[in-house]
Amino acid sequence: MPLLTSAVTVVVVLFYFFIATRVPVARRKYNVQLPAITGHPDFERVFRVHQNTLEWMPIFLPSLWLCAFLYNDLIAAALGLVWIVARWFYYAGYARAVDRRIPGFLIQSIACAALLILAIVGIAVRFPGLLAQWRLTP
Amino acid sequence: MPLLTSAVTVVVVLFYFFIATRVPVARRKYNVQLPAITGHPDFERVFRVHQNTLEWMPIFLPSLWLCAFLYNDLIAAALGLVWIVARWFYYAGYARAVDRRIPGFLIQSIACAALLILAIVGIAVRFPGLLAQWRLTP
Amino acid sequence: MPLLTSAVTVVVVLFYFFIATRVPVARRKYNVQLPAITGHPDFERVFRVHQNTLEWMPIFLPSLWLCAFLYNDLIAAALGLVWIVARWFYYAGYARAVDRRIPGFLIQSIACAALLILAIVGIAVRFPGLLAQWRLTP
Repeated sequence: MPLLTSAVTVVVVLFYFFIATRVPVARRKYNVQLPAITGHPDFERVFRVHQNTLEWMPIFLPSLWLCAFLYNDLIAAALGLVWIVARWFYYAGYARAVDRRIPGFLIQSIACAALLILAIVGIAVRFPGLLAQWRLTP
Repeated sequence: MPLLTSAVTVVVVLFYFFIATRVPVARRKYNVQLPAITGHPDFERVFRVHQNTLEWMPIFLPSLWLCAFLYNDLIAAALGLVWIVARWFYYAGYARAVDRRIPGFLIQSIACAALLILAIVGIAVRFPGLLAQWRLTP
Repeated sequence: MPLLTSAVTVVVVLFYFFIATRVPVARRKYNVQLPAITGHPDFERVFRVHQNTLEWMPIFLPSLWLCAFLYNDLIAAALGLVWIVARWFYYAGYARAVDRRIPGFLIQSIACAALLILAIVGIAVRFPGLLAQWRLTP
């Protein structure tokens, strides 16, 4: 079990929980009652931060764990930390203005791309062994 | 492979699918046509139940599996069942009134917190071994 | 580590990313400014494709990996590819009209159901061994 990536995943879960709690906080601040999800632009941007972070989870978490299992635990964990920090800047920027979400967003995208590319490398180096196991190579 | 947690995950997937199907049922009942997601408060609360359950998946599933792998399969599976039951009460309550979502929500939060804390315990007890492996301890 | 399912998961992540990027493309095309998520029916249908694909991730990904670990890597990977193709038809259909989402949606549902049933088979055949390990059988 990749221990460092496990530890980073705990931090990811806690960070994601923190982002999720920003939504009810913004509900009270801008007086947007449940179950509405619109009504004040400042609320809607915080809502979008949470929603976008959720939307990226099926990209980030599989990439993180494929990289951890098939490439390297330490490198996966380090890129996971980069993702968390970039996501924090994305949140802090987007909460202020739509355009200020860009820098954090780009860096978290690059972290995800790096994780996925390293996972592909890990798969590629194992493929000859799999084919040999199936006696598909001479 | 943690077998009990695997079995509970199958139940989680089936339960989540059940919750997801409540949304089209509510669409028909309250006559909210696709692709709209607003239009009737009773529909919007059922929509929010599904949405919130989805939003908690990146908290619940990683916590469940980290606990299963790094702490104990049986305890992870048991807390997973608690989560499912609490989520059912959350659904049944929220479908009736906004305030009635609270008890189920709190219990599923506690189940997730317990899973995450036990995962952290499992990571903590393995860390000295990892450091020794890297010869970082004397 | 199930290598074929890992490779298919990489394709799933890339496919999901492609679907996610259809939303900002549709924002520009139909002039729906952030953070709004409504305003033009053609935008709203593309938005719903992404949202529904996200909503199915907690069904698809756990089913895929439980099937890969507990039943068979090759069969899980093949069903994963069926899911991706069906999801593409779902996207291409729904982007044109609400009713044209149905065929792709049904096939991806069947792929998920098959993955989950095979995972249950994999769990069922291992249960006697688990009970014997606990000395719960005579």
